[in-house]
Amino acid sequence: MYQFIENGTITSVKGFQAAGIYCGIKKKKRDLALIYSPVECTVAGTFTLNKVKAAPLLVSQAIIKAGGKVKAILINSGNANACTGEPGHQDALDSQAWVAAELGIDPKEVLVSSTGVIGQRLPMPVLKQGIKDIVPIVSPIGGYDAAEAIMTTDTKDKQFAVEIQTSAGSITIGGICKGSGMIMPNMATMLGFLTTDAVIDNQVIKDLLLEAVTHSFNKITVDGDTSTNDMVVLMANGASGIEVVPGTEVYTEFKSGLMGLTREMAKAIIIDGEGATKFVEVFVSGAHSAEDADKIAKTICNSPLVKTAIHGQDANWGRIISAAGYSGAEFDPAEVSIYFDDLAIFLPNYRIVLDEEEALKRLSKTEMKITINVGHGPFSTTWYTCDFSTEYIHINADYRS
Amino acid sequence: MYQFIENGTITSVKGFQAAGIYCGIKKKKRDLALIYSPVECTVAGTFTLNKVKAAPLLVSQAIIKAGGKVKAILINSGNANACTGEPGHQDALDSQAWVAAELGIDPKEVLVSSTGVIGQRLPMPVLKQGIKDIVPIVSPIGGYDAAEAIMTTDTKDKQFAVEIQTSAGSITIGGICKGSGMIMPNMATMLGFLTTDAVIDNQVIKDLLLEAVTHSFNKITVDGDTSTNDMVVLMANGASGIEVVPGTEVYTEFKSGLMGLTREMAKAIIIDGEGATKFVEVFVSGAHSAEDADKIAKTICNSPLVKTAIHGQDANWGRIISAAGYSGAEFDPAEVSIYFDDLAIFLPNYRIVLDEEEALKRLSKTEMKITINVGHGPFSTTWYTCDFSTEYIHINADYRS
Repeated sequence: MYQFIENGTITSVKGFQAAGIYCGIKKKKRDLALIYSPVECTVAGTFTLNKVKAAPLLVSQAIIKAGGKVKAILINSGNANACTGEPGHQDALDSQAWVAAELGIDPKEVLVSSTGVIGQRLPMPVLKQGIKDIVPIVSPIGGYDAAEAIMTTDTKDKQFAVEIQTSAGSITIGGICKGSGMIMPNMATMLGFLTTDAVIDNQVIKDLLLEAVTHSFNKITVDGDTSTNDMVVLMANGASGIEVVPGTEVYTEFKSGLMGLTREMAKAIIIDGEGATKFVEVFVSGAHSAEDADKIAKTICNSPLVKTAIHGQDANWGRIISAAGYSGAEFDPAEVSIYFDDLAIFLPNYRIVLDEEEALKRLSKTEMKITINVGHGPFSTTWYTCDFSTEYIHINADYRS
Repeated sequence: MYQFIENGTITSVKGFQAAGIYCGIKKKKRDLALIYSPVECTVAGTFTLNKVKAAPLLVSQAIIKAGGKVKAILINSGNANACTGEPGHQDALDSQAWVAAELGIDPKEVLVSSTGVIGQRLPMPVLKQGIKDIVPIVSPIGGYDAAEAIMTTDTKDKQFAVEIQTSAGSITIGGICKGSGMIMPNMATMLGFLTTDAVIDNQVIKDLLLEAVTHSFNKITVDGDTSTNDMVVLMANGASGIEVVPGTEVYTEFKSGLMGLTREMAKAIIIDGEGATKFVEVFVSGAHSAEDADKIAKTICNSPLVKTAIHGQDANWGRIISAAGYSGAEFDPAEVSIYFDDLAIFLPNYRIVLDEEEALKRLSKTEMKITINVGHGPFSTTWYTCDFSTEYIHINADYRS
């Protein structure tokens, strides 16, 4: 059993410190975050599959791949350090080394991460000073500032923590994330940093994070359709003394808490989608394979015609079935049914049962669920998206990301 | 050698008649078109690969697949006759039979096509009267009205004709088309109807149309990513007496004219894209396969982040390389170069040579070309797209398609 901690964040977890400051990469908002555990942590990470990978991502990925243990993560916003070639790679290594020197730890114990404009070198003197400034002020209440410092076009910081009651005692997991442009999530940079005081070995933590990400962030951002900088990292410092071992009850409880936390983080990203006015859950059932279910859900979630219809509160189910039709999934259109919340709109054998007035009641809410059943297959999935407003155009025509 | 005929349309071709009227499917605009050749025509068609196929599309596809010859095409706008089940299929067959009866020809000589709202039955009494009204008024100058009658959210009718000079004499090809929502072309209904007075046998006409569509409409609308109703049809009545036989000079001339005509039609659809203010040509070169070139071009053309940047006249090449990166194509980012028209922006080995002022000159024009070279492969492609404006949201939030 787990529950969300009020005002929970990464530093709600025993033994983790953090800070977030303005150092001068952005024009005026906080742009540098540091997460620190004096005790070394096992770590797992998932990274973008974009062919074009940012320098800090490559540096961090190599450490995690090699099975290294880490103590710190440095994150800057305002500059992605992507498409910056060998000099950019050196910048990432330099910033890693500076953090290590200030903290008195090994550079290999420091992960680095960036988000912001592509194709510009980091302002290194400014960053160097920022690292000098941020290290002394990391604290057990610094998670809030860190959550703010990783934002780009986000309008709200996103931070959560859960407390998990197990037979062996209490474990905490905290998380901060940022995601912009999430109306078409496949093109935005999404960063997520998770901390826990559980004791988890290096292989188990990888499996747990992968499964959690698959059912949360990957339902809004999918493998292969990601930005140059996407990464999600989970650090475990073991401060609770409680071991998470597969096959035990503690493992099941921990996994459930991690899944709940990451799903909430993913939802927060969607709700803060650029220009979003409505949160939409898309539930696909009856698919012949998990892949088909995901294809249908993803295509509906990404369809500008569906998203603009939702924005206009138009019960345009034709756009939903058409998107399913070109998703590449196998199904028989004669078996399709569509619901808005609990309201049937379209039933098998092309029976249209749309009640415009009742549909409008669902569409005029700020949260709604679209269900599409495509047959008798055993596979289903839930994805999240939001509507598509004129505000999105303004944000992305005017902001250089 | 071919040239465009001023004010050319489908009835610029010898032996073809047409008409376009208002019959009552839409609120007030023309909504019914008929194309007619008293002489039977060989015919080719390409059809949507969407799993959900509209009834008229299935009826027409069956005739063309069976190698039938045809004399007429009936097209209505305002109602797609899609997701209407068995009754909708019968409606398509009935309208086909009514046209045949009025013209005194076989129902199998009549193709049917629809575009508009999904999931509503056609108003059959209104359509029946419309067919009675339209048949007597088909004429050799009716192409203009027909082009207007097939429009939905199109702001302009789209009609062209080319005259091809061959050693055997002159051949004409005419075409009308409609395409709405072409900012994300993969979700819009695209219809195209082509007429020619060449003599072309049934297999040759199929090959020619397929190749022309591949290099024109399919560079804006791709297999598998199409609406429920998409179709392009080419009818040849042989009135010129000139045979188009593979391996001959006439064949080469004809093909060149057909390709030029369909490319112009495809471009007209993009230029009329919903809310579009800029026409963008995307040229991808250096790819390892034709498929990779198409993946990259398509992903760039469909990226809302790229399209909003172009709308905002922002030289945001980072979004272009990022879209290429998640397209699924194989390439080495270190080999990528990007140009706006003739202006280099980004060169191999991550050299950024962007001159903001010069870039703005290109971006502020209403037509521009983005070139992205991704390596040393032999494959290239040209796609077409437009920018993404707030107007698009208004159109699609308010219009039920």
